[in-house]
Amino acid sequence: MDLAVSPLALPFPDMPPIGGVKLRAARARYKDWERADLTYVELCEGTAVAGVFTQSLCASSEVELGREQVRSGRARALIVNAGNANAFTGYRGREAVEAIMAQAADHIGCSPREVLVSSTGVIGVPLPKDKAQDGVAAAFAADAASWEDAAKAIGTTDTFAKGAHASAMIGENRVELCGIIKGSGMIAPDMATMLGYIFTDADVAPAFLQTMLDQATAKTFNCITVDGDTSTSDTVLVFATGKAAHPSIEDWDSPGADAFAAALNDVCRELAQLVVRDGEGASKFVNVHVSGAASDESARKIGLAIANSPLVKTAIAGEDANWGRVVMAVGKAGEPADRDKLSIGFGGIWAAREGLPVDGYDEAPVAEHLKGEEIDLAVDLGIGDGRATVWTCDLTHGYISINADYRS
Amino acid sequence: MDLAVSPLALPFPDMPPIGGVKLRAARARYKDWERADLTYVELCEGTAVAGVFTQSLCASSEVELGREQVRSGRARALIVNAGNANAFTGYRGREAVEAIMAQAADHIGCSPREVLVSSTGVIGVPLPKDKAQDGVAAAFAADAASWEDAAKAIGTTDTFAKGAHASAMIGENRVELCGIIKGSGMIAPDMATMLGYIFTDADVAPAFLQTMLDQATAKTFNCITVDGDTSTSDTVLVFATGKAAHPSIEDWDSPGADAFAAALNDVCRELAQLVVRDGEGASKFVNVHVSGAASDESARKIGLAIANSPLVKTAIAGEDANWGRVVMAVGKAGEPADRDKLSIGFGGIWAAREGLPVDGYDEAPVAEHLKGEEIDLAVDLGIGDGRATVWTCDLTHGYISINADYRS
Repeated sequence: MDLAVSPLALPFPDMPPIGGVKLRAARARYKDWERADLTYVELCEGTAVAGVFTQSLCASSEVELGREQVRSGRARALIVNAGNANAFTGYRGREAVEAIMAQAADHIGCSPREVLVSSTGVIGVPLPKDKAQDGVAAAFAADAASWEDAAKAIGTTDTFAKGAHASAMIGENRVELCGIIKGSGMIAPDMATMLGYIFTDADVAPAFLQTMLDQATAKTFNCITVDGDTSTSDTVLVFATGKAAHPSIEDWDSPGADAFAAALNDVCRELAQLVVRDGEGASKFVNVHVSGAASDESARKIGLAIANSPLVKTAIAGEDANWGRVVMAVGKAGEPADRDKLSIGFGGIWAAREGLPVDGYDEAPVAEHLKGEEIDLAVDLGIGDGRATVWTCDLTHGYISINADYRS
Repeated sequence: MDLAVSPLALPFPDMPPIGGVKLRAARARYKDWERADLTYVELCEGTAVAGVFTQSLCASSEVELGREQVRSGRARALIVNAGNANAFTGYRGREAVEAIMAQAADHIGCSPREVLVSSTGVIGVPLPKDKAQDGVAAAFAADAASWEDAAKAIGTTDTFAKGAHASAMIGENRVELCGIIKGSGMIAPDMATMLGYIFTDADVAPAFLQTMLDQATAKTFNCITVDGDTSTSDTVLVFATGKAAHPSIEDWDSPGADAFAAALNDVCRELAQLVVRDGEGASKFVNVHVSGAASDESARKIGLAIANSPLVKTAIAGEDANWGRVVMAVGKAGEPADRDKLSIGFGGIWAAREGLPVDGYDEAPVAEHLKGEEIDLAVDLGIGDGRATVWTCDLTHGYISINADYRS
């Protein structure tokens, strides 16, 4: 099936090279695709790595291995297979992964444990070892790839290439952060997320890199949802090559730690939002702002209950200011709420305040706002200081077409 | 919008009158409907009542009042308003409810606390007191209504009238149970459920009636889902008039208690399944059988994670034996699971066993099964004795059309 480019797509940004990072793309031919489907990234010695992974109890071998690998804090290579998730494939799937880890380790002269692998695509078909090994060999011999090439090569049902860039000043030194991501369906929060990779030339201690990634993930990747369905393969990795000339960032007291964390957070948020912009069938990008909740975590859960509600999402698709469905979603979230203190608004206009429809509420400007591509939905619980923003897309015929109208 | 009758509709069954129950239907004209939208049921003195209600924290006044009322265990009347849920309407909504409770209590000569009220329809518009009172007065004067009349009058977006009947022998006495229900969207489990009413001439102590209803609800109404969205107004009430000539059923040791509980369970299960059969846009009825789980409750949660997954539901709509999506849903359920012990099958044929695709798996008979209207999806966790069956429907373009393509 040929998918039209999402109407919410953004152009691929200019992204600088990162010292210590070599990008390659090749064709392993996992599917009948006329494009690269294997991405190989070689990283200089001393590269720190941190990662977050799906909390699915049916995670793939790649995720199981990855969880162990990031604990060591060091990485020399990343291989991403697109077109086959290699999930639910038992020992047969694991063999292929171990084979290409060894192959890259031989090539670089490092331990297989320093070679991270991700796979994305169909579940239940073991990754074909021969194709994977041929693909990796082709990648060794390939020309340098651009960030956009790599972003395309890791995609599956994605309709546009997704990347984000930020920089931070560490004292007198400027460090760069470049990220790429894939994902458009089977996107749900409270777990890690799709496949995302962020590269930086900053010099950061692995344990602290993990701390910063965990914090950024909580407010970015874990605050998006397309369909409430959580993948078996979700992975976000950050690689810090340390090629920039600044004293290592070891903890929050290190010079530049705050600046770097802010830049990392920016890249994570942009990448997360790009996935929502490529949500299957999406026609509108929705910011769900929750305030006045019992806690930030409670606000996030309420935001996700709203963002995952098929009735709210179809109302937004229909450009319908149906705040009754928002009340329903707040009520089912299971979080502290008081019906008579609840306020709901669209595009900066309250439709209901403190449990009652607003007297003389004029729907015209709200209807105008809902015709746009970027929707703001605000919910104030009126009971505390907790707040969160969650991002989602609407639910349209396009989602059904993509997921029901063809056979996988 | 005119909705086509669900392809999964069943004909309305023959249902006998119940001693002590008078049915009336009238037009309160809450909407521009050419049909009755107010149902009034008068119950003889001594009628026992039990009920389960939504656990939404934004429940309607009707639900708040109902929770208190069923604690007394006695009821003399039921009023159901269709076309206006009267939820999120604050004190203005509550006034109208209290007015019609008083009106019916005056008419019967009972306490207003013995008059139960339910409302279903749009959220956020206060129930118009004048229309409600006129409707109730019209119902007092109306001719007797049939079960099917009442089932139609309580409906909103329902595409067919839904009723179920069972009987049980209490010693030498036969007792009858008749139930009606409405609901097709905003249907989710783990709360009570839509609006359902069951009437019996059995003589049952109120506290024990509540016990039996709670048990039946756990395995019936709380095991269905259409869209994972839980209403603010869900209510199921059981009324036992005691007109049958048998010794009162007081507890599990009373003669006939098991037979009555089994009949009640049958009616609850049939009513719950009818709601799924009228699921918005449904083209297939899906039985999700979960076995081998850590506990029955764990099995139910896994079943609901599968039944609520948009990717599983669209795969079934597409007649696609995509068991990878079932793996995903099991993995995200957050319940004990071991990927390498998991088995998945359709229509009695295992596609995957113990974490691996079945060798020589023939998809042809599975594809044939998926073309039917009644789908069996089996998941065995392989780690315990917990089991549950959950019922749902597929997710089709019809759901989007009903909920996005018109303005509420």
